[in-house]
Amino acid sequence: MKFDKPVPLSEIASLIGAELIGNTTANATGINEIHKVENGDLVFVDHPKYYDACIQSAASFIIINKQVDFPEGKALLITSDPFEAYQTIIRHFRPFNPSMKMISETSAAGEGTVIMPGAYIGNHVTIGANCVIHPNVTIMDHCVLGDEVVIQAGTVIGSDAFYYNKKTNREIHYKRMLSGGRVVIANGVEIGAGCTIDRGVSGDTFIGAGTKMDNLVHIGHDTVVGKNCLFAAQVGIAGATTIEDNVILWGQVGVSKTLTIGKDAVVLAQSGVPSSLPGGKTYFGYPAEDAGQKKREFVWIKRIPQLWDLVMKQKRERERE
Amino acid sequence: MKFDKPVPLSEIASLIGAELIGNTTANATGINEIHKVENGDLVFVDHPKYYDACIQSAASFIIINKQVDFPEGKALLITSDPFEAYQTIIRHFRPFNPSMKMISETSAAGEGTVIMPGAYIGNHVTIGANCVIHPNVTIMDHCVLGDEVVIQAGTVIGSDAFYYNKKTNREIHYKRMLSGGRVVIANGVEIGAGCTIDRGVSGDTFIGAGTKMDNLVHIGHDTVVGKNCLFAAQVGIAGATTIEDNVILWGQVGVSKTLTIGKDAVVLAQSGVPSSLPGGKTYFGYPAEDAGQKKREFVWIKRIPQLWDLVMKQKRERERE
Amino acid sequence: MKFDKPVPLSEIASLIGAELIGNTTANATGINEIHKVENGDLVFVDHPKYYDACIQSAASFIIINKQVDFPEGKALLITSDPFEAYQTIIRHFRPFNPSMKMISETSAAGEGTVIMPGAYIGNHVTIGANCVIHPNVTIMDHCVLGDEVVIQAGTVIGSDAFYYNKKTNREIHYKRMLSGGRVVIANGVEIGAGCTIDRGVSGDTFIGAGTKMDNLVHIGHDTVVGKNCLFAAQVGIAGATTIEDNVILWGQVGVSKTLTIGKDAVVLAQSGVPSSLPGGKTYFGYPAEDAGQKKREFVWIKRIPQLWDLVMKQKRERERE
Repeated sequence: MKFDKPVPLSEIASLIGAELIGNTTANATGINEIHKVENGDLVFVDHPKYYDACIQSAASFIIINKQVDFPEGKALLITSDPFEAYQTIIRHFRPFNPSMKMISETSAAGEGTVIMPGAYIGNHVTIGANCVIHPNVTIMDHCVLGDEVVIQAGTVIGSDAFYYNKKTNREIHYKRMLSGGRVVIANGVEIGAGCTIDRGVSGDTFIGAGTKMDNLVHIGHDTVVGKNCLFAAQVGIAGATTIEDNVILWGQVGVSKTLTIGKDAVVLAQSGVPSSLPGGKTYFGYPAEDAGQKKREFVWIKRIPQLWDLVMKQKRERERE
Repeated sequence: MKFDKPVPLSEIASLIGAELIGNTTANATGINEIHKVENGDLVFVDHPKYYDACIQSAASFIIINKQVDFPEGKALLITSDPFEAYQTIIRHFRPFNPSMKMISETSAAGEGTVIMPGAYIGNHVTIGANCVIHPNVTIMDHCVLGDEVVIQAGTVIGSDAFYYNKKTNREIHYKRMLSGGRVVIANGVEIGAGCTIDRGVSGDTFIGAGTKMDNLVHIGHDTVVGKNCLFAAQVGIAGATTIEDNVILWGQVGVSKTLTIGKDAVVLAQSGVPSSLPGGKTYFGYPAEDAGQKKREFVWIKRIPQLWDLVMKQKRERERE
Repeated sequence: MKFDKPVPLSEIASLIGAELIGNTTANATGINEIHKVENGDLVFVDHPKYYDACIQSAASFIIINKQVDFPEGKALLITSDPFEAYQTIIRHFRPFNPSMKMISETSAAGEGTVIMPGAYIGNHVTIGANCVIHPNVTIMDHCVLGDEVVIQAGTVIGSDAFYYNKKTNREIHYKRMLSGGRVVIANGVEIGAGCTIDRGVSGDTFIGAGTKMDNLVHIGHDTVVGKNCLFAAQVGIAGATTIEDNVILWGQVGVSKTLTIGKDAVVLAQSGVPSSLPGGKTYFGYPAEDAGQKKREFVWIKRIPQLWDLVMKQKRERERE
């Protein structure tokens, strides 16, 4: 999540009650998780296992629960609960302050765009030209749509991420990590009816130009989808995954989190993808593997009874010998 | 389904045109199916196979299509079509009398609760404090939400059960069994976008405190979900099933009806659960079984060609001998 | 797609800029794809491979990109891009001219029908008597519902087909083929919450009398569903498929496009149907096959380790000999 304008570190430190050491006069440009963070951004870490990775990351400023060594020019913001500090920052810079009108006055749409009845357009939403937003669609705050985008009826863009912090000593074990990110949809994207696309937690969920989705598709938070992909109905993609250009996922395919499906890959219907797949090939089954190989496996399974008969016959013969 | 206040049996008998015998001066507290019924309730039965179970159940009053023996203190309501009698009772005590406003005046919400535009809140809905009901959500009549409940956009709470009575001698074979039950959602539950939770037929569908669901999840009628469960996107659970506390179901898992998944169980993505699973273990595949064992099965399948080669080699050798 | 009244071929030729030869004074009754086309209709073809089939089809008038021989009484409309000609015809006779009211004045509903708040009813929609359209449902232009139809909340009827023409020389590879068809729903159909039913591209998507669907079901464009079918939650059916009468599809079943499932067939939960299935039997698995046989396959897979041990023992014995 990027701040609307750079924010003095001292202001952040004061907001979260942190001790600020190092480059104390710098400004922060945003806050992100370690895999998305850029130079000028804040990052947060509360487990010694990840201290090093955070301090050596592109992040300039580290919200941390212990004083550690850090490179020249960076800064630490030391506080007992970096996770809560993250929540406080999101709550401050992206407050939940929902528009109570169906179309917020702080949203904007380009020429030729049609927003049909029953559609909800939240605060600071930007929609390009020649789009069609069908009835009963919901587009939550800060989302961005390019030109020639079509969203079929009942679809939800920018729902909160399914991303929780677990502590079993609370009566309610799971506490939602607030979503500071957006959904950004490029030109020429068309999304079917009844789909759900979650906003990013600290970054953006992104749908590349020309990608088309059928109905009841789910896209998780912070997932990045390339250009000219095709997702058939009831596909589900978990969070922080990367789908490269021209990927085709057929109906009811499930894709796990934080993996990559390479360019031009095709995944056949009902397959499950638990780990990254190289591009340019056709995959099938669970776990998704080369489709030709997987289909041969079906043939082999059908041969087990024959194999059994052969082995039993050999066994009987040997016993008779 | 419980009546708002106890109802004289004689009033029920007259409503459904039944002959009343036994404890004719009693009051009924509600009507339920056999597995949910409590002392003071009505139950209904039209098949001799189930007569005994109904008469011996906790139910005090039995709507039945034949005179049979019954315990002291109970009553029979004898009528030719007990199923139709059930429908008549539901129609009378839970009439379909929908509110034509987006938010019914007979509903109530606690302090700090935000109901966003496009949300429909039916008659006699109760919502606790500090909830967020996102745009275009639908909450049907009589549903109950606790405190700190979040419902993401487009979700439907309290749709009618998918529960039909079949008679092939009708042109329309299936006749809906009317849903007299509710959806009851405890404190701290968060439900994703585009989900559907059906009301109970004669009892309630219940979601326990702190349970979190991702998008496009389906929960069937009369299903009871425990505390602090996690259901990932596109999970589907059929009717009258019990999911105990802390159960985790990953993406696209399907769970059949009237079974139990025990406490702390984890079911991996895309698995299918056709029968009950003990708690405390991780399951995978269809039918879902111990995940480690199931994954070893994948390894065994890949060894079939090798096995085939070995057996063929032995066969050739023996033929040569 | 049928025109509201017959249209002179000369008018069509002029609209799409085509050279008209043959029966130039005829009127066209509609336009359809080759598998749906009827006498009096237009059809369109741009690939020599399909020329013959189109010219010999029931279609009376062929939009084509080359002059070819054709039967007496028919006509050719010759144009360089028949696909674009189709789009032009749909755009002209079924213009996207959306109603900006929740209930269009050009729609009509029969006696006893209840349309609940938040429901969108498009232009020229016809709804029969005694229907219930629940909150936040969307019914798009030209759809037709019979009597006693129930649509649960959040469902979308008549979303555009997921049907694209691909050209990789465009920056946006896929261009939507415009949907000129409708969704037609017969008497006594009940559709769950959060479902999506796409309109036909050139024909109609049809749901037969008495069919019942649970929640989050997807039905693709031009698919024809018979009478008294039952589809459990999260079933997905692709485009142009035929499901005959009394078919039961259990939860999360996926069905591929342009195939037929025969009368009285039952497909068990989570199965995948990649090709046609004869009626009257129970199917399971992927690819769906006879359920009994498929379940025996599970038993055989579990015997592989035993088979392995036997073969290894025989191998060791032979080596010792």
